[in-house]
Formats: sequence, C-alpha cells, structure tokens
Amino acid sequence: MIEGSPLILVVNDDGITSPGIKSLIKVAKEFGEVIVVAPDKPQSGMGHAITLDAILSINEMEIEGVKAYACSGTPVDCVKIAVNKILKRKPDLILSGINHGSNSSINVIYSGTMSAALEGSLEKIPSVGFSLLSHSIDANFSAAQHYARLIIKQLITKPSPEGICLNVNIPNVPQELISGMKVCRQAIANWEEEYDERTDPMGRTYYWLTGKFVIDDEGEDTDEWALKNNYISIVPVQSDITNHKIINDIKHLENA
Amino acid sequence: MIEGSPLILVVNDDGITSPGIKSLIKVAKEFGEVIVVAPDKPQSGMGHAITLDAILSINEMEIEGVKAYACSGTPVDCVKIAVNKILKRKPDLILSGINHGSNSSINVIYSGTMSAALEGSLEKIPSVGFSLLSHSIDANFSAAQHYARLIIKQLITKPSPEGICLNVNIPNVPQELISGMKVCRQAIANWEEEYDERTDPMGRTYYWLTGKFVIDDEGEDTDEWALKNNYISIVPVQSDITNHKIINDIKHLENA
Repeated sequence: MIEGSPLILVVNDDGITSPGIKSLIKVAKEFGEVIVVAPDKPQSGMGHAITLDAILSINEMEIEGVKAYACSGTPVDCVKIAVNKILKRKPDLILSGINHGSNSSINVIYSGTMSAALEGSLEKIPSVGFSLLSHSIDANFSAAQHYARLIIKQLITKPSPEGICLNVNIPNVPQELISGMKVCRQAIANWEEEYDERTDPMGRTYYWLTGKFVIDDEGEDTDEWALKNNYISIVPVQSDITNHKIINDIKHLENA
Repeated sequence: MIEGSPLILVVNDDGITSPGIKSLIKVAKEFGEVIVVAPDKPQSGMGHAITLDAILSINEMEIEGVKAYACSGTPVDCVKIAVNKILKRKPDLILSGINHGSNSSINVIYSGTMSAALEGSLEKIPSVGFSLLSHSIDANFSAAQHYARLIIKQLITKPSPEGICLNVNIPNVPQELISGMKVCRQAIANWEEEYDERTDPMGRTYYWLTGKFVIDDEGEDTDEWALKNNYISIVPVQSDITNHKIINDIKHLENA
C-alpha cells in the first residue's frame, strides 16, 4: 500500500528506446509521477552485473512526456544511480520492462530486467519486472499493459510484504485468450547450449551462443505450467540464494 | 565422490592473468587434469551476465603448465563454452577463483566468480567458488590454498548432493589464526551506494560507484559472523530465487 501520489521509477534491459519500455511508461503514468532511468543500449542477459571499474554517464531526455535518463551502465546500475543520485526522494515503486522475451524459470537469473527489479527490492522498494513472451519488434503489448495495470493497482492500494519483488511473465496471445493470473514458483529448467562456430575474414574462429530450453519440472505450480496454459505467471523472488535444505547435510565439510 | 582421475575446469572473474587463478590452478593440479577457461580481461561484478548479442572468441595459451583458454566473454560464458565446446568430456569439478575480494553475503549475486560456479552447478557439475578477503595485488593466497585443498579433497572422495555449489570465503589472516571452517547461510546485508560526481575534460558530468557495506543480520549462523570470527565460510548456494515463504500471502494478486 502506498500513501499519497506515488513516485514510480521505470527501468528495463532492452534499452531506453525499446517499444516495451514505452508501453510500461504509458501504464505507469496513470498511477503517479514517473521517472525513467534505463540503459542507453540493449543490455539483455546482463544478469546482476554492475559497473565497478569504469565510469557511468547519464543523459537527460524525455520519453512519452516524462523525464528520462539514458545511463551508460547495466540495468542494476540504472536502479542504483536512480535511487542514490538522480531521484530527489526514494521511489514508491520500481517497474522494469516490459521485456521483449521470457524471463520465466531459470531465465530469471540471466535477466537484466529482473535483476533491476531485484535490486529495487534490496532497496526495500516494491519492484516488478514484466516480460512478454515475444521477441518481435512488432509485439503487441496491450494484454501485458492490461495486466500490468491490475498488478500495479494492487501494489498501490493493498498492503504487501516489505521489499516485495515480482517476476511477471505474459503469454504472447490475444488478451481474450489469457486464462488469468497465477502466483507460482520458478520452474526447474536449464539451457542446453550449443556454440555456432564460424570463421572471421581474418581466418580466426569465433562463436555464437545458441541453445535449447529444457524444462525438467512437471509441477502445476510453476511459471512454465502457467504460461503454457495461457496464464500470466507471477513469481515472488528474493536475493537469498543459500541452499538452506542442504546446510545440515554438508556439515561434515567443517571437519575436513 | 568422483570416480577415476578427475577433469577439473578452473575459471574466475578477475581475468586469466590474475594471481588468484594461478594459486587455484596449483592446488587443482594436485587432484587431476586441469583445464583453464577464463576471461581475457577483469570481469568483476559481472554477476550472471552472458553474451547474447555479440560473438565470443577464445585464445589458447598455457598457465602454470596447464592448457588454458582466454575467452572474450563473461565468467558464465567461460563455463558455458568450456562445458559445451572446448572440453572433450564433462568436467568432474569446477573451481572458480581464487577471487580477489569478498563474495560473502549479498555480494554473491554481483559476483562473476560465484555466478560461474552457479552455472557449473546448473550443468550438474559440483562447483566451488573461492574468494580471499583481500584486494591487494600482493595478497597471500597460502591459507586459501590450504583450505581449498581440504574442500576439493572432500568433494572428490566423499558423496555430495548432485550439483552442489559452494561459496567459500577466506579471511585475510595468516593461516595459524584461522579458527576452522563453518557451513553457514548468506547474511542479510546490503550496500549503501554513493556516487562520486566528477567532470571530464569536455565539461561533462560522470560518476564512480562507491558505497558502504551494511550488515542487517546478527545471526551466528551467517557467513559474515564466520568471517568476522576468522572462520572460513562455506555457503551452499542454488539458483531458485523464488520467495517460497510469501507465495501464499500474495495469492490475492490472482484476483486483481
């Protein structure tokens, strides 16, 4: 629940000029004051990377009628510099996306979109990453916008756990085919990588990453199940990656 | 437990020429065949970043008498291309580091060293990241090497959970002052960032990230407590970032 008129920070990882971020700004504007701080170039797959050994620069502009800052850093840098330097007060809500492509399942840990949201929640700010399951430049964001609106409204009007962070994925189907929303867990899955090997004009070998997504999880409580059944998936995420379940099983390591 | 003579992949995030990786290669060589695949430049703070929209190149060399490949990508790229392209068979063990600087607590999610290890565990390969709490170029890695040796020996000779991934941090004190090893959980902590604002020769503003590490956790079962008390901290980590505890508390979002 947010008191007064919310200050909303919008970020993404596809870069400040992407269609997805414009769709999200339009929705965010309905709820309060919006400031955009987003990468000045595409930063997909940047995970939780931050800029440690280089400088950051920011350039002020306007997008969809709101003040925006193009930042030379990663999505997580954008959140850090927005919260700690650019914004006059702590934002009430951080929205990341709308990403072009899925961030369900294991993709969440590679995702700049979701890392930006997670960084927001580390600042104890409610944060949501939105991703549409389409990489098309002509993707239709209207269903994603509709459900983003519903989720944002709930976060603003109802109490939520402190520092809540949501990973929201939207199936790429017309809005009338969407079954509803499901709160779920991250499915167990992985990528089986292949490297496409090529030769450059100087005769040197180089590689392109390709791969196949393999789901190793039959659970009906997962984001992959929800998306396959045309539900919007909502996975609450957090930054503790301790494998609590095996702590007691490996205590013998202490006596090595 | 690993059968036969192990094939050990060594990676890091400080780059293939760092002193830390040499210290780790020396220990790894005592246990089996070692292949190094590491970034061709420093990649600290790269988290789980991968190279999606650019090519990768690799250059073969030799370090500490073993075959090594300098890769143009991130630490996670190094693991992916090593396992899926460079190595003739799946490695039995992945060792990452020895990192120059701490990867305890929340630092784990920003760490290229630990993301490389986590990526190894996603390939179902036992993986360990080692970090020494010193950024000095003259850091003494001998205590870190001693305890790395003990942990590697256990992983090779005793059964472990499938895809085990360990985040091992070593206090920067002489070996005789180390209290022992503690299996623990990631402490709750965060960075309070500040941005140092400067002006470039062309009159443009730029920023350097600085910050203060703030621990918000009194637990004696944490990595921060262990390190403060001169223990080696061993935190088992995994890639499911679902906040399972709050799934039921936010089911109302489904009815928005």
